[in-house]
Amino acid sequence: MNKFPNKIFDIVQEDLMAVEKELYSIIQSPVNLVNDISVHLVQAGGKRLRPALYLLCARGGNPDPSSELLPMAVAIELIHMATLVHDDVIDNADTRRGRPTANARWGNHSSVLTGDYLWAKAFSAIATGAKQNMLKILTDVISNMCEGEIIQLQEAFNAEQDEADYRLRVAQKTADFIAASCELGALTGGMDNRDVMQVREYGYAIGMAFQITDDILDITASAEQLGKPVGNDLRQGIVTLPAIYALKTSTHREELRRIIVNQNMSNDDVRRGLEILYETDAVEYSYTQVSKYLQHARNSLPITLNGPVREALLSIADFVGLRKY
Amino acid sequence: MNKFPNKIFDIVQEDLMAVEKELYSIIQSPVNLVNDISVHLVQAGGKRLRPALYLLCARGGNPDPSSELLPMAVAIELIHMATLVHDDVIDNADTRRGRPTANARWGNHSSVLTGDYLWAKAFSAIATGAKQNMLKILTDVISNMCEGEIIQLQEAFNAEQDEADYRLRVAQKTADFIAASCELGALTGGMDNRDVMQVREYGYAIGMAFQITDDILDITASAEQLGKPVGNDLRQGIVTLPAIYALKTSTHREELRRIIVNQNMSNDDVRRGLEILYETDAVEYSYTQVSKYLQHARNSLPITLNGPVREALLSIADFVGLRKY
Repeated sequence: MNKFPNKIFDIVQEDLMAVEKELYSIIQSPVNLVNDISVHLVQAGGKRLRPALYLLCARGGNPDPSSELLPMAVAIELIHMATLVHDDVIDNADTRRGRPTANARWGNHSSVLTGDYLWAKAFSAIATGAKQNMLKILTDVISNMCEGEIIQLQEAFNAEQDEADYRLRVAQKTADFIAASCELGALTGGMDNRDVMQVREYGYAIGMAFQITDDILDITASAEQLGKPVGNDLRQGIVTLPAIYALKTSTHREELRRIIVNQNMSNDDVRRGLEILYETDAVEYSYTQVSKYLQHARNSLPITLNGPVREALLSIADFVGLRKY
Repeated sequence: MNKFPNKIFDIVQEDLMAVEKELYSIIQSPVNLVNDISVHLVQAGGKRLRPALYLLCARGGNPDPSSELLPMAVAIELIHMATLVHDDVIDNADTRRGRPTANARWGNHSSVLTGDYLWAKAFSAIATGAKQNMLKILTDVISNMCEGEIIQLQEAFNAEQDEADYRLRVAQKTADFIAASCELGALTGGMDNRDVMQVREYGYAIGMAFQITDDILDITASAEQLGKPVGNDLRQGIVTLPAIYALKTSTHREELRRIIVNQNMSNDDVRRGLEILYETDAVEYSYTQVSKYLQHARNSLPITLNGPVREALLSIADFVGLRKY
């Protein structure tokens, strides 16, 4: 996906540059291979959406001047990186964001270990500063994400999933972490309980919209735009919202079902599966759900939150809805 | 490996039973597969050496009556379990301690994710209680272990390693974590700095002796005793102390070198490699190194540490030297 326009992050631009610098610094290892893989992962970049949300929500409150925002922002991104590198091993992914994955370049074994290394570095970043309740929020969300990923593995090639299953899975593997990033920011910003919960709700809805968009783009964007093959989810038996909708509404739903449950899908199967999805209004339906979540995100922002931070958070909601790859 | 005789752990028997109970409790997941794999890992058991050492060292001091020993002991064992499940994925191991590994039973993907789940649960256990310096010790030792494992991967099938390389690698992947378990116990027990460092040195030496013994047993014990195939290290190109010694002293060292650097070792190659090791006094030499470390461990115990805890720690040193599988 393309980067967020810079202006969205204006208020936290300096913080984010410091995060970037600290990411390079904390992953430094005397072991060359660890260094190479970690640097590759930091360079692979991404949007830094989670630390940006954390920082914005913190700046949206009144963070204690003595409190350091950087360590938690760095920890959040390291955790995200660790999940990505392990996900790519699990998905056997060759490319991410148009670049070779760590597993494609250095093999699964080193990638698993580097993921573990990043877990440790994430907790190392916050070991000396984080409040206990914040640590607990973070560890809970990680175990939750792992559960979500395992459910996804377990339910692969299962055409009997409904929308509720899908929403639960997306919450666990994506939205809860984005929600937690916002919640942790709000807590650092010293917001009151009610506002913390509202900011968390904003993050949750952004996360849901974000993942559904990802799942739509997996079938509509070009491989070049995606930086990975089209129809990847289908090929891996991951049943996403458009597929669930088509399984319910398509006149070819039996054919689609047979394609989805086939663990040895050919390229032709994937192509035909996508064709069936395109024939329905699965994509429109899914975008409608994205819009609903984004509206919910906007509505969730506490009224006490105003000024440029509110604007930035609203712009993020707009942007998530607009992105085409 | 067989369990330690119960009497060694008499003083911390109750603590260890509480650890066992808490392990089952903390891994509980609403996701059946996560539960099944985690329970399998807890049941696979092992010696609980690291939490036992932590508890003994804590009880060897005067832990603040209000301090809870359990969370850190549980975290230490969970971290150990997470490393084991990922190691087995990396080594493609089918059995550990005579039981099928998680990866053999549930596949690599679920095993990687369950390892991640255990990382999160480990930090969750101590999120609300651990002192910051203790968290830092733990995260440092984990990133260190990952580096050690990656070095091991990188140096596989490399016959040019010397004893110093080996010792460094063993320190990173095994001894430092056992040292940290003791250090964390001593810190919880409120020992003074000098004693903490001595207890840490004890743990380090125990860890070195422990891993060298493991590496010896890999070539001398029967598959049945090991609960895994004999000559496993050789087959995977992991060059351990006996091999390094034989590469230096054997009249067949050129043949051994050719076997080690061959990434497609046949069973006959492994058998011949072991034969060459047996012909030298590689095993005796390695056991001499074990004895030296154990003597160093005994000498490292601070004089202020006495009574049954001292006896237990001395017995552990004896036991590590005696174990035959």
